[in-house]
Amino acid sequence: MKFIHTADWHLGKLVHGVYMTENQREVLNQFVEVVREEEPDAVIIAGDLYDRSVPPTDAVELLDEMLFKINVELKIPIVAIAGNHDSAERLSFGSSWYKHSQFYLAGKLSNHFEPVRINGVNFYLLPYAEPGVVRQLLEDDSIHSHQDAMKAMIGKIEETIHPNEPNVLVGHAFVLGGQTSDSERILSVGGSGCVGVELFEPFSYTALGHLHSPDAIHHDKVKYSGSLLKYSFSESKQKKSISIIEMDEKGNFTHRYRSLHPAHDMREIEGYMEQLLDPQFYEKEKTDDYLKITLLDEGALIDPINKLRQVYPNVLHLERKIDLTDMKKKQTISGARSEKKSEIELFEQFYTEMTTSEFTDDKKAVMTEIFEKVLRGEALVK
Amino acid sequence: MKFIHTADWHLGKLVHGVYMTENQREVLNQFVEVVREEEPDAVIIAGDLYDRSVPPTDAVELLDEMLFKINVELKIPIVAIAGNHDSAERLSFGSSWYKHSQFYLAGKLSNHFEPVRINGVNFYLLPYAEPGVVRQLLEDDSIHSHQDAMKAMIGKIEETIHPNEPNVLVGHAFVLGGQTSDSERILSVGGSGCVGVELFEPFSYTALGHLHSPDAIHHDKVKYSGSLLKYSFSESKQKKSISIIEMDEKGNFTHRYRSLHPAHDMREIEGYMEQLLDPQFYEKEKTDDYLKITLLDEGALIDPINKLRQVYPNVLHLERKIDLTDMKKKQTISGARSEKKSEIELFEQFYTEMTTSEFTDDKKAVMTEIFEKVLRGEALVK
Repeated sequence: MKFIHTADWHLGKLVHGVYMTENQREVLNQFVEVVREEEPDAVIIAGDLYDRSVPPTDAVELLDEMLFKINVELKIPIVAIAGNHDSAERLSFGSSWYKHSQFYLAGKLSNHFEPVRINGVNFYLLPYAEPGVVRQLLEDDSIHSHQDAMKAMIGKIEETIHPNEPNVLVGHAFVLGGQTSDSERILSVGGSGCVGVELFEPFSYTALGHLHSPDAIHHDKVKYSGSLLKYSFSESKQKKSISIIEMDEKGNFTHRYRSLHPAHDMREIEGYMEQLLDPQFYEKEKTDDYLKITLLDEGALIDPINKLRQVYPNVLHLERKIDLTDMKKKQTISGARSEKKSEIELFEQFYTEMTTSEFTDDKKAVMTEIFEKVLRGEALVK
Repeated sequence: MKFIHTADWHLGKLVHGVYMTENQREVLNQFVEVVREEEPDAVIIAGDLYDRSVPPTDAVELLDEMLFKINVELKIPIVAIAGNHDSAERLSFGSSWYKHSQFYLAGKLSNHFEPVRINGVNFYLLPYAEPGVVRQLLEDDSIHSHQDAMKAMIGKIEETIHPNEPNVLVGHAFVLGGQTSDSERILSVGGSGCVGVELFEPFSYTALGHLHSPDAIHHDKVKYSGSLLKYSFSESKQKKSISIIEMDEKGNFTHRYRSLHPAHDMREIEGYMEQLLDPQFYEKEKTDDYLKITLLDEGALIDPINKLRQVYPNVLHLERKIDLTDMKKKQTISGARSEKKSEIELFEQFYTEMTTSEFTDDKKAVMTEIFEKVLRGEALVK
């Protein structure tokens, strides 16, 4: 039995104010071609199909189109769950009808823990759910963390599991040992979002979503597929892929990767203005990639972003590295996580990443006033 | 061939700040019972399934549940189109899968004008679309109004229609001669939203949505079913129903109504405080209906709404009629359409109808300041 494991499509995602939908369409078309070639018995999508609970309509149309190609045109069963970015209720709409053609979509967690059986393999679907939701559903007041919730759900599954059959868990969680990147929204504060890898012991394979790197965890049976595309510069060095698993009737499996090749990579480059704008340099570069550029120049520069965009149309982020005394110290125009930022800088970063419009001085003035009032403890409304 | 014609469910509707979802659930359960009794060959829903493009999640779950009962459990085909309140794209998601079980959902208008054929009757589905969308789709620059658009689409249908077969059009439009009520959002300004009834001549029956009264038009072959519930006080005297049509192979049909009985009616009552609060009066009333109360008292009244709500918990709207000189003149606390209102009064009315929170003095102060600035021509952002 062969299946493809993918996750974290994040359709409708904005990266630094740019919609990724066209890139997602292009790479999903490649994905469909891989599915056509591989002819798997199932495609597994382990959550975060969309980037937000109410995705833009073109993301809705894109998902519909791609799932239709795979499930209806190619007649390949699909097993999909909601992630923390999806709206469980909105994604669930219509799922009763999809089963007809072996498209199994678990949006909302239910307390039926029966598997979906495809070609002799049992797939257990655990869509993302907050611990509070699991506590209510299972009527178990001892559930407080994601660890508690996952343990309780797997406990329910174990009541009826056939240990001698091949069993696959499909889940969306932050499994301990995984490495995070900037584009994975934090599940919970204070570590309670983490889930121990040992919980997945009962399964032949655990197909995870949430962390965006296929290397996020090193375990022989518990794996992230990684996201469809790079969704932040902290992922720029990751290799994105999908996983092809072939499993025998005992649950033993082989695992290999296949890469997709987006037209625009997401990369970081660094150099002096003069060098970056020199044809000798950029002729060797793929100039239309999504770029984070770090400038090494010292002193004032006039309108560097627009000069750079004439050569590199998709610069998403510009930083400067400035030499202070002996030590190189990085001054971030926007972006790096580790530095202490003011509220207004954090808001600007958030605004720029979440919208397609510019954070003008006017807008900044309004927000600055609000932040000042809040910090002074004043009521916002007179 | 028997089918049920309904429309304008408006799931997720807020009426004067109160969500109608529970009332909708209750009356849709009655609807499902009628479907079970009547055993029609199809259920037609002529648009405005939801009240807004992004409905609340409990409205999404309610629609899913009701359509599942009708289509999957009772195995009755469903023919549904998007109305002007629905998001064509969002509603369309998954519709390719629904066809398996004869659930035909047209969200976005397509340029395939083939009918859905059920038990010998051809159903032509025309979801709501703006004239500009139809102009683009049909590549016809002469289309400017809804009349032009409908004429062009019906022209397309006529190219392949079999005039000797029973043909039913399912549409969502403001057909001329129809009477409007407050809860039907205006399609267009200046009358260009209207469509002439003569356009529907080629069809044995035209199943319309948009106007909320089943009496909105008097025509032997072109009919509105009316909305599921009363959605504004201007509809309080309307009788809500669903239409049962039985059609022979020549397209001749009989038409009858069946009523649904919501637990809470929407009614207007009028009287003096003392009278309305007198048990002798209200014992005969259904006090938990949704009420618009018009008070006849003169002079100051202390907190009338809260006193009234102790007897009539679902007062949605309170007006006073005040005697001025000889002539009775109506002073509206909020609501009546014909009177001249200030911007802030209009905004308050809008706010109260569209949200579930109170329009406090604080909020009023903020909006007043904004209106004043706008009226003085000042920039809002410094």
